[in-house]
Amino acid sequence: MAKKAGNRAARDPTRGSQTQQAIVDRALNIAAQEGLGALSIGRLAKELNMSKSGLFTHFGSKAKLESAVIERASLFFFDHILVPAEEKGFEGIERVWSLCDSWLDFVEQGILPGGYFFTGAYFQCAGQSGSNPRQIRRVVRDWLDALREALNQARRRDEVRMAIDAKQAAFELNSILIGAQWSYLMEHKDRTQARSAILARLASLATEEMPASAFESVKAWRKYLESRPE
Amino acid sequence: MAKKAGNRAARDPTRGSQTQQAIVDRALNIAAQEGLGALSIGRLAKELNMSKSGLFTHFGSKAKLESAVIERASLFFFDHILVPAEEKGFEGIERVWSLCDSWLDFVEQGILPGGYFFTGAYFQCAGQSGSNPRQIRRVVRDWLDALREALNQARRRDEVRMAIDAKQAAFELNSILIGAQWSYLMEHKDRTQARSAILARLASLATEEMPASAFESVKAWRKYLESRPE
Repeated sequence: MAKKAGNRAARDPTRGSQTQQAIVDRALNIAAQEGLGALSIGRLAKELNMSKSGLFTHFGSKAKLESAVIERASLFFFDHILVPAEEKGFEGIERVWSLCDSWLDFVEQGILPGGYFFTGAYFQCAGQSGSNPRQIRRVVRDWLDALREALNQARRRDEVRMAIDAKQAAFELNSILIGAQWSYLMEHKDRTQARSAILARLASLATEEMPASAFESVKAWRKYLESRPE
Repeated sequence: MAKKAGNRAARDPTRGSQTQQAIVDRALNIAAQEGLGALSIGRLAKELNMSKSGLFTHFGSKAKLESAVIERASLFFFDHILVPAEEKGFEGIERVWSLCDSWLDFVEQGILPGGYFFTGAYFQCAGQSGSNPRQIRRVVRDWLDALREALNQARRRDEVRMAIDAKQAAFELNSILIGAQWSYLMEHKDRTQARSAILARLASLATEEMPASAFESVKAWRKYLESRPE
């Protein structure tokens, strides 16, 4: 199945031969745990038992390899967080919950091990210029936008109060998630606390149309979602 | 003043000649904005107009240079956050506030530019073994411990309710700070919101001995602190 890597593949580093995919897989594994800065052509060549020059022909530069790794990481990120909410057709406040819940799952299940993608990467590259830092910031901004849009949808559905600033609320929910990841990396426990904090925040945003009892616990919330008419 | 770098200096990379200090300064500047992974002996040698081998004799290895950079970064971090609370003799809830307020100052004033030290560095190295990741985690843990101890002190002073779990409260205050840094790196505004959120959290922890009106705004809080008897 492997085909010869040519210029076409080099132009689009996320596609290409099995060899290219194996390189990106290995590189992603290193970067997720140690950061993009830990990638080197030499280390990868050694780990993959390839020649440096052979590896180099697949990507042309370290920057292009990094870009392919960020692209692959973002596919994992969105596949596990944005896609479920989309596929299950969640709307409004249920969609907000799904995004946050999946985000926590992504961390807890170690879909990409370590804290680098995309939290560490974002903090690291937030002030940097260049194409790859921009690519990382775009992933993070897309995530924030998805959260904000779901909150706006919840407002249109009369689930969240009109006076709420969706962007500000998205920042606040994000803070709970990032803080939970920080704590989780420190202690590797605390799986329910973050979800209770998310629910408490949602309760403070909700209109009177939403039953207050639904926000009392994660269990109560899940039961409420199951019993919703639509 | 510069003296010849010998083995002694190589063993203690935070001290040593002016040249060594210049190397660490430049390396710190790069790492703060791009991460420790962006450091290379080659890049530093070029930027400092030194030979690679000349630069190498000062530290002996890239790992030792990185260690010296982390050490220098931690001095900046603690000097701006822990030392003020100590020097001014703040105790209890005032100390908790000072730690959080100084942490936000550290970010907003760009004492170390970018989001790497120590937030990005922590997320990056949380799952890594080795001496340098351990050194980074220790700085972050020292910060969390300082916050927790101040909260315990506030409890002993009857400013914070007995039932409060100081460690959990420290995690929560830290979440607000990390989330604020995330937002700040995204939008470069929002200087007051984080402090109001910290105050709201402190209000929820406080005993009835504390006047509720003091937590209403940052201004009210500062006024209250000025008028405290001790």
